[in-house]
Amino acid sequence: MAEEVKLFGTWTSPYSRRIELALKLKGIPFQYIEEDLSNKSPQLLKYNPVHKMVPVLVHNGKPITESQIILEYIDETWKNNPFLPQDPYQRAMARFWAKFIDEKVKAAEMKAKSVEGKEIELVVEEFFEEMKFLENELKGKDFFGGETIGFVDIVANIVAFFFTVTQQAVGVEAFTPEKFPVLFKWIGKITEIDVVNECRPPREKHLAYVKAVIEGFKSAPK
Amino acid sequence: MAEEVKLFGTWTSPYSRRIELALKLKGIPFQYIEEDLSNKSPQLLKYNPVHKMVPVLVHNGKPITESQIILEYIDETWKNNPFLPQDPYQRAMARFWAKFIDEKVKAAEMKAKSVEGKEIELVVEEFFEEMKFLENELKGKDFFGGETIGFVDIVANIVAFFFTVTQQAVGVEAFTPEKFPVLFKWIGKITEIDVVNECRPPREKHLAYVKAVIEGFKSAPK
Repeated sequence: MAEEVKLFGTWTSPYSRRIELALKLKGIPFQYIEEDLSNKSPQLLKYNPVHKMVPVLVHNGKPITESQIILEYIDETWKNNPFLPQDPYQRAMARFWAKFIDEKVKAAEMKAKSVEGKEIELVVEEFFEEMKFLENELKGKDFFGGETIGFVDIVANIVAFFFTVTQQAVGVEAFTPEKFPVLFKWIGKITEIDVVNECRPPREKHLAYVKAVIEGFKSAPK
Repeated sequence: MAEEVKLFGTWTSPYSRRIELALKLKGIPFQYIEEDLSNKSPQLLKYNPVHKMVPVLVHNGKPITESQIILEYIDETWKNNPFLPQDPYQRAMARFWAKFIDEKVKAAEMKAKSVEGKEIELVVEEFFEEMKFLENELKGKDFFGGETIGFVDIVANIVAFFFTVTQQAVGVEAFTPEKFPVLFKWIGKITEIDVVNECRPPREKHLAYVKAVIEGFKSAPK
């Protein structure tokens, strides 16, 4: 049977961009469908009736949702260029850091929505304090996955391309090469990989989008 | 090398109780260490410096944290009585429902802490509305895992032994055999398994504990 792979995503979502990256790293041809989250398509609602969110990967008609679950599915289905290590302990560690990143980002988003006006700066600063665990984890390695890009690197791509834009939009300088030398060295490394750059939104357009979202948080009724 | 398996847990935590259950289902001997979360041991803080929480599994000196990550580690390390199916799509579906359960429980806890007085009843009722997805998923099957207890059943054990106690403590009747016939039939099925019952807190003691927690939420400053 010919493989049919479709990805429903949106250009601003680090979660769907990481699935694009994973498919490209594995060399899997796929059809990309851009969703407008303010006017979700009937297909998206059909394929993800529980969360109604992107990303959704549809493989030979079967939908898979939740970005980290999709990454594991891709890694188990197409065995070339493995994302996760073989050793069960190393796999557990990779899953731990991937979960850490997504949970902390989500928690910061929730907090940012609930605070008033300029308090959002404190949320961003607090968030970067927590990212010191990640800086520490990466010490002495080129990639989280060791010598090459792996599961945690794909997830942590959110650090490289979304954190700097977010702090610029908020107007803080919490994430700098002086404070995070190891993470910035790693950003340099993954930026050398062509497919990584292909899965990155254009910076100015992205910055304008994030600024609009933050203004929305600030002015929303609490 | 002789295997050394230690579990740091607490009797009220569905997350550490599920690891006890997993180890017992696999027939793995282990040492259980009860933690007092109001006075955490130096060992717990050493093994889980990021989250400082139970459960922590320590296998031959190496710590693993986060209950679902521990379950995957156990399943990958001891291959008998597999928890996850072999097929990548079925594995993705199991991970999806396990994540769904834990995220919804956590979100309900967060909401319960933020609302005033009796509004907590609404949070619990809303939560059970979302559990209808789970009821639907289980239709036509004895267990989430199919014919026998598996990954989602171990995670969903929180439904069986914690939801009924929680709603009794809050004083609502949202989770009933009339509204959730499939889940209640499943509770009957897993209650026939001895090791499942061994990993369940004594009901009256548990109810008193949950009531105290809820009172704490209600009277906490917002």
